[in-house]
Amino acid sequence: MNGAESLIQTLVDSGVEVCFTNPGTSEMHFVAALDEVEGMRCVLCLFEGVVSGAALGYAAMAEKPASTLLHLGPGLGNALANLHNARKGNLPIVNIVGDHATYHLQYDAPLTSDITGIAGPVSHWVHSSAAPADIARDAAEAVQQAGIGQIATLVLPADVSWSDNPSGAAAATRKVQPAPVAADKLHKAVEILRDDRPTVIMVGGRNVSEAQGVKLARLAAATGARLLTETFPVRIRRGAGTAVIDRLPYLAELAIDTLKGTERLILLGCASPVSFFAYPNVPSVLEPEGCDVYPLAGPNDDIDGALDSLLQAFAAGSEVVPLRELQVPPAPSGPLDANSAAQALAHYLPENAIVVDEGITSALACFPFTSAARAHDWINLAGGSIGFGLPAAVGAAIACPERKVICLEGDGSAMYTIQSLWTMARESLDVIVLLFNNRKYSILELEFARTGARGGKPGPKAASSLDIGNPDMDFASIAQGMGVPAVVANTAEDLNAALARGVAEAGPLLIDARVPPLQF
Amino acid sequence: MNGAESLIQTLVDSGVEVCFTNPGTSEMHFVAALDEVEGMRCVLCLFEGVVSGAALGYAAMAEKPASTLLHLGPGLGNALANLHNARKGNLPIVNIVGDHATYHLQYDAPLTSDITGIAGPVSHWVHSSAAPADIARDAAEAVQQAGIGQIATLVLPADVSWSDNPSGAAAATRKVQPAPVAADKLHKAVEILRDDRPTVIMVGGRNVSEAQGVKLARLAAATGARLLTETFPVRIRRGAGTAVIDRLPYLAELAIDTLKGTERLILLGCASPVSFFAYPNVPSVLEPEGCDVYPLAGPNDDIDGALDSLLQAFAAGSEVVPLRELQVPPAPSGPLDANSAAQALAHYLPENAIVVDEGITSALACFPFTSAARAHDWINLAGGSIGFGLPAAVGAAIACPERKVICLEGDGSAMYTIQSLWTMARESLDVIVLLFNNRKYSILELEFARTGARGGKPGPKAASSLDIGNPDMDFASIAQGMGVPAVVANTAEDLNAALARGVAEAGPLLIDARVPPLQF
Repeated sequence: MNGAESLIQTLVDSGVEVCFTNPGTSEMHFVAALDEVEGMRCVLCLFEGVVSGAALGYAAMAEKPASTLLHLGPGLGNALANLHNARKGNLPIVNIVGDHATYHLQYDAPLTSDITGIAGPVSHWVHSSAAPADIARDAAEAVQQAGIGQIATLVLPADVSWSDNPSGAAAATRKVQPAPVAADKLHKAVEILRDDRPTVIMVGGRNVSEAQGVKLARLAAATGARLLTETFPVRIRRGAGTAVIDRLPYLAELAIDTLKGTERLILLGCASPVSFFAYPNVPSVLEPEGCDVYPLAGPNDDIDGALDSLLQAFAAGSEVVPLRELQVPPAPSGPLDANSAAQALAHYLPENAIVVDEGITSALACFPFTSAARAHDWINLAGGSIGFGLPAAVGAAIACPERKVICLEGDGSAMYTIQSLWTMARESLDVIVLLFNNRKYSILELEFARTGARGGKPGPKAASSLDIGNPDMDFASIAQGMGVPAVVANTAEDLNAALARGVAEAGPLLIDARVPPLQF
Repeated sequence: MNGAESLIQTLVDSGVEVCFTNPGTSEMHFVAALDEVEGMRCVLCLFEGVVSGAALGYAAMAEKPASTLLHLGPGLGNALANLHNARKGNLPIVNIVGDHATYHLQYDAPLTSDITGIAGPVSHWVHSSAAPADIARDAAEAVQQAGIGQIATLVLPADVSWSDNPSGAAAATRKVQPAPVAADKLHKAVEILRDDRPTVIMVGGRNVSEAQGVKLARLAAATGARLLTETFPVRIRRGAGTAVIDRLPYLAELAIDTLKGTERLILLGCASPVSFFAYPNVPSVLEPEGCDVYPLAGPNDDIDGALDSLLQAFAAGSEVVPLRELQVPPAPSGPLDANSAAQALAHYLPENAIVVDEGITSALACFPFTSAARAHDWINLAGGSIGFGLPAAVGAAIACPERKVICLEGDGSAMYTIQSLWTMARESLDVIVLLFNNRKYSILELEFARTGARGGKPGPKAASSLDIGNPDMDFASIAQGMGVPAVVANTAEDLNAALARGVAEAGPLLIDARVPPLQF
């Protein structure tokens, strides 16, 4: 068994069964080992931003890490943006980054770079294996470190990979469990919830589940607290049968308004809400001045256990609370725009779908329109770096092959990791890409106005920088070029037909939905 | 004048006149300032790897830096691979990376990241401006640091950008000149060239010019030394009228053979040759054991001056040396493959074209076939990270609008920065993309064999990781989707017609050349 084989065996034995790859020469022994060791599914991506974004989507749905295989420092660099997104979402990933042979590094060959330096800012744990006998132990430690919410990056020098490793494989031994919330913190929370000052419970994190929603609704009914989710929880169960919980708006001005009058803010799985960006004359902090903030449970803590304890304290474990009743709107007709597109989505959304939301402005209406649609999971962008949607849909579809994935995607954001489409085709993934093609960086038009730059009115050069028409992109053509069937939708009826087809058929379908930019 | 305006004014006054951009909210005041300050050409790219690759190509041809505008740490991350390539090629770039407002960083908003940490491994100089009054001085220093061959990264917090800066603009004052080579080093080189031990002069670096080639040929004629270029000099003048200089082969085994018997190796503008990757049982160092290596001039030293001194010492300044005579092969006919494609390129290559070479295996024959074609510049990948070709062609075309750019591109490598096509269309750039579509990571098949993994024979999973057919990509469709006219070439005649059209017409054209993989 060589180093690469013991590495893969260790990953498989530790429960890491998928590897999203974009390999190069220094990783050839790892690639070769995939045929020597059973149990690792290898998914080829044509760009490393797809690799890391797919690992993100996989982790969100599988609730365990996938591995990535990246080619030296530049390959890791290409993966950085979606590793940032995964890190901000507390999602686990095990990166394997090939490096030159240890003895070759001194010669500063063209692809030599400071891999651990590049990995540092996006990793919780970085390690370079020095010898073949270390690789199994190091890989087991990487899986352990990834645990439930960390990025672990293991650098694998080529000679460590190709040399014989008589020590064989190892395995991560401890299954990482969410940390229980301390009794004194729970006690304090009960105290807060007992008095009658206006209190908000805000929930977020890796997975706001159906059960969590119901527990929260019971707690709110028993205590009079208001419920909110953070703006972009990584994953949340929504639709028919789920509790009614609004989300904190994205726009700082609206978020501040939503939290007005709140005197206590209890946080479950999320951080204190802050403005996504800074703007002249808009506060960074969104809760009212003087509001007390109680971070009860972080994203890696036992949120369910904390909720059970609180419910027990209020003897509120079994009340019947109102849940969303299924409301499916009729299919829309007439012009295609953000609203009719959202209505069509709500009409056709199949039971237990996974929605990946990177539709930015054009998909704004999709969230409220689907609040009482057939039950589904909704995946948000936790780290703010666009280019996560298409690859996350790849990863979600690999994690949940029996479920339909619907990726709401903007034209601008799609272009960061457009290579994802090819992997959808290669792996016949059950993904509908609903691409809102409005020929603008529409969010930036809004943000330009919000920053007050140039009195909020872009001059010709600025306007040109926000306008991604000229030339218009034809996403149907791009998708077909990568092997994904695609249709153009110019009317609500077109979109209805396309969604009906996408839901009925297996495999990927891209819908190039030509919508006017949202007017703000 | 606000911080952003003084920054742009400073860049323009320091000779930085192009900005490749992919902005976000934190850069909106910079974008707004483009309309307030005269003289900065703003080129929008849809992905940051295009931004940095375009800056690379621009620097190679303009011999001065462009600026980039990148959105926070993740945007910089997306740019990293081509910044690595530029760094390895000693090319100057000034990166402007927007950050949150200084007072907002403490709140760890979703897009907060360690920007200077991410910048470090690819930058020679990194600085974050603390106040609007500093920005002009800092920007001038960034241009100074970029000088002739460095990556300078300036972080621009949003509040520094939007706040008033009563100090106004500044400008880089010193024009950076190549460092003269010390007399004792020149003296030593003369000594070496005087004796009759087998000596190789190897030249490389940012620009192996026509004049340098002639000087080298004279020096070789006068001293009996052999001439070689490094494997991948960033830029080299070739074709009719240029001196005859072979290049060191890429494959370590062939490079070792080429250097066999060499006792002295004089380096001009390049480092001592090493194997691109390490392989079991292949040496990392390519010159023979015991060969003395004399690094006479680095890439930032005055190579021309050093050559003049050596020629003077040998009284060899004016000999007539043989130069390549124009040899244009006839247009090919019949099947399209790597050889007939190379012949077609050599036939149609217009005078003073710029060839960007990322054709990997399929373009191997293009280099020898064009050695006596119409005179041209050839741009190589110095840093080894694929995805440089298409964006470098964008940058070269912006730098040299009067010249035809021909980008030799592999299908695999094209997909890393395929978004470049859109910028070619938007800016009506005079670029022919000759895309070799062989449906393989063909170089990796070769490298797999060279590493000896699994006895050199990929198993089914490994083979699948090297095969990017299934589904086949249709690059004509992809290009048209981004607004670039495209044709498919299945025969040599198809390619002839396409190249003739590309040379005759202005604006971009992609040729999807369906070639069989090279057999090794």
